[in-house]
Amino acid sequence: MSNVDLICERAQNAFLALVPLHHEIRNKSLRLISKVLESHTSQILDENRKDLEVAKKMLKDGTIGSSLLDRLKLDESKIEEIINGVLAVSELEDPLNNIQMTTFLDHGLELNRISCPIGVVAAIFESRPDALVQIASLCIKSGNVVILKGGREAFNTNLLLTELISNVLNDSGLPSGTIQLLEGREDVRSILCRDDAIDLLIPRGGNDFVRYIKENSNIPVLGHTDGICHLYIDADADEQMSVNLTIDSKTQYPGVCNAIETLLIHKDIANKFLPLIFSALKEKNVEIRGCERTLEIFPEIEKATNIDWETEYLDLIISVRIVDNLDDAICHVNKYGSRHTDSIVTNNESSAEKFSTNVDSASIMWNASTRFADGYRYGFGAEVGIATDKIHARGPMGIEGLITYKYRVNGNGQCVSDYSGKNARKFLHKKIF
Amino acid sequence: MSNVDLICERAQNAFLALVPLHHEIRNKSLRLISKVLESHTSQILDENRKDLEVAKKMLKDGTIGSSLLDRLKLDESKIEEIINGVLAVSELEDPLNNIQMTTFLDHGLELNRISCPIGVVAAIFESRPDALVQIASLCIKSGNVVILKGGREAFNTNLLLTELISNVLNDSGLPSGTIQLLEGREDVRSILCRDDAIDLLIPRGGNDFVRYIKENSNIPVLGHTDGICHLYIDADADEQMSVNLTIDSKTQYPGVCNAIETLLIHKDIANKFLPLIFSALKEKNVEIRGCERTLEIFPEIEKATNIDWETEYLDLIISVRIVDNLDDAICHVNKYGSRHTDSIVTNNESSAEKFSTNVDSASIMWNASTRFADGYRYGFGAEVGIATDKIHARGPMGIEGLITYKYRVNGNGQCVSDYSGKNARKFLHKKIF
Repeated sequence: MSNVDLICERAQNAFLALVPLHHEIRNKSLRLISKVLESHTSQILDENRKDLEVAKKMLKDGTIGSSLLDRLKLDESKIEEIINGVLAVSELEDPLNNIQMTTFLDHGLELNRISCPIGVVAAIFESRPDALVQIASLCIKSGNVVILKGGREAFNTNLLLTELISNVLNDSGLPSGTIQLLEGREDVRSILCRDDAIDLLIPRGGNDFVRYIKENSNIPVLGHTDGICHLYIDADADEQMSVNLTIDSKTQYPGVCNAIETLLIHKDIANKFLPLIFSALKEKNVEIRGCERTLEIFPEIEKATNIDWETEYLDLIISVRIVDNLDDAICHVNKYGSRHTDSIVTNNESSAEKFSTNVDSASIMWNASTRFADGYRYGFGAEVGIATDKIHARGPMGIEGLITYKYRVNGNGQCVSDYSGKNARKFLHKKIF
Repeated sequence: MSNVDLICERAQNAFLALVPLHHEIRNKSLRLISKVLESHTSQILDENRKDLEVAKKMLKDGTIGSSLLDRLKLDESKIEEIINGVLAVSELEDPLNNIQMTTFLDHGLELNRISCPIGVVAAIFESRPDALVQIASLCIKSGNVVILKGGREAFNTNLLLTELISNVLNDSGLPSGTIQLLEGREDVRSILCRDDAIDLLIPRGGNDFVRYIKENSNIPVLGHTDGICHLYIDADADEQMSVNLTIDSKTQYPGVCNAIETLLIHKDIANKFLPLIFSALKEKNVEIRGCERTLEIFPEIEKATNIDWETEYLDLIISVRIVDNLDDAICHVNKYGSRHTDSIVTNNESSAEKFSTNVDSASIMWNASTRFADGYRYGFGAEVGIATDKIHARGPMGIEGLITYKYRVNGNGQCVSDYSGKNARKFLHKKIF
């Protein structure tokens, strides 16, 4: 039996043992995890330092980038954040065993739909050791079993974190296979083929990485690819609000998926608004690329091509297009966007309504920054990830992304043959809720 | 531009045009479709006869099986059923624009989650022309656009049905690309690669066919593979109910996924119950294969091997295993089952509860036949399909399987920078519902 075969078998057994446990046992183990992480802060920092030393060498070689080093590094305040995150998850409402629907199929024949965990989840993520604790907590809370694969640059930190959590699980009566760590890249390739054992893949990382996972597995994937987001300033927009939202959506954190790449602006106000917006953008060192009409007003600006409209810069660059009307703006967003997050600035409610209905994106903002599209800001407590497909969960995914349901039919001996053929008994189909 | 490129472009444009339309327009077109199908019954039967003639030749060649011929054949009463199905879909509640969740992120910053269509759906199905009308109706109702591919043996019938529906759509102001028919197998292969244009694949057909689709596409798939279902008779079961439910679950329609393949029975009642059950099964010409303990009581019976526990017979064959207790029954179901539908017969509520919680299947029956696991019987009006994965929709899928959601944030100019760093404004995160 290979390593991955063993891990999958252990995971499947752990899931079956985990399902019947009372939610208070799961919450208690989360509270214990937070305590153990607190009392092992210095050991965690020691292991993290080992990883950082290797990573610094890799940075010199050019094997990794400096942003990865940032995400890898833990300090006391980051560990405190991690601990608070675990406690926050323990305080979430129990997502399991909720009756979502009840129908009386007939007198004495009741159909219920009840929330339950998905099963065995494999989470594959890069560098950030805090992601390991967050995903593990969400899985414990929701009764799912998780196979984790972190980046090799975080190996020592991840190993200790997994050991600490596993020990708590053993002590609190949860199955030991609830959390398992994969080590090599070979194992990831093997995992991707195990659609018989794994119910869901959650890749957290760059676009190419998520695409690789999707292309190499039959297992359903909840993951996030491009974030080509837009801010559209309508003819009825407030000027100062337009400036503020452009700056926030572009520059508050340019390297993330919910930052905008393209500004669309109605032709009637472009002459008046753009000078202010551009001077604010320049103050933040943002490079501006404009459409032909933008260049008529600002000939010194670089020209934006079709490639710009399709590019996720993740950097201090913005493309700007002047449009004739709301319909053209919607058309541009649906054509070039990535269905992630798009915002309209307007004081006209029916324009906002039209934009919200017609733009096919996971999050639509009206007079608000695109940067609000995030599990924490949406109040989900913790984020499983952000999904760019439309199936199961869309946009920022809270713990609901880890939940499915089962149907339960309670009868007193009913047979389908009684409901078929001549003199068939009729279904009542009385929907209770 | 290839045929499939054109079809995908037309579908995407149709989706964007369809989304803003009022649900009464969609319902009206469904009512019109039912009328047009009624007034064209004889033409539909003519085209169906053409298909049947070709199919009969294929049956002689052995290219197709006789069950396929059954599914292909339409008659007046089947067309009436189809028409009633369309009307039933038109009468379903509007599944779109429902507010599923509201949270006040802050004063004047409101988050809503709103139901919306998924987008472009590709449905690939075998023979049954009624599936075409059912899927098309569900898509029109739910604001989705659909690319259909039926079996070549139903080509003439499907072509006429698609034309009739398309004409109604044109007349009622729905985009003409709402429904499109694919013709050749080559086109199916091309469609599977278009994860940029297609949001969901719904294959309806045999297991191998669904597996082929999953293995050859990155597009999310809602489909159904094996149905290895069990009936477990507990020590506290009623004897006559046990006989009735075994017969109904096995023989009411043996060729379908929710018929049982294996009977599990508690050792304490096996001696008493099995003679009655076996004589009832033999009366229905069911071949019985038993475990070693069964053979001790009935030495004349054929022995069941491990292969039997893993086999979906789809035929008048049943495997029987005597188990020590409820836990062993649960263990067998989780090990050999396909997570589809499993039933327990017992008068003991806590045994039923344990079985329901611990068996990891989409539908769990208590004192009811497994054959109830079906969209029509569950009261969903029409069935999109049955899903055996756990993501998005599980088990019998009603129109909900075609629905996703989007988030809408309404603000008055809020920036994320106000909620970050020192003196950060705190989120309210007041959940309204």
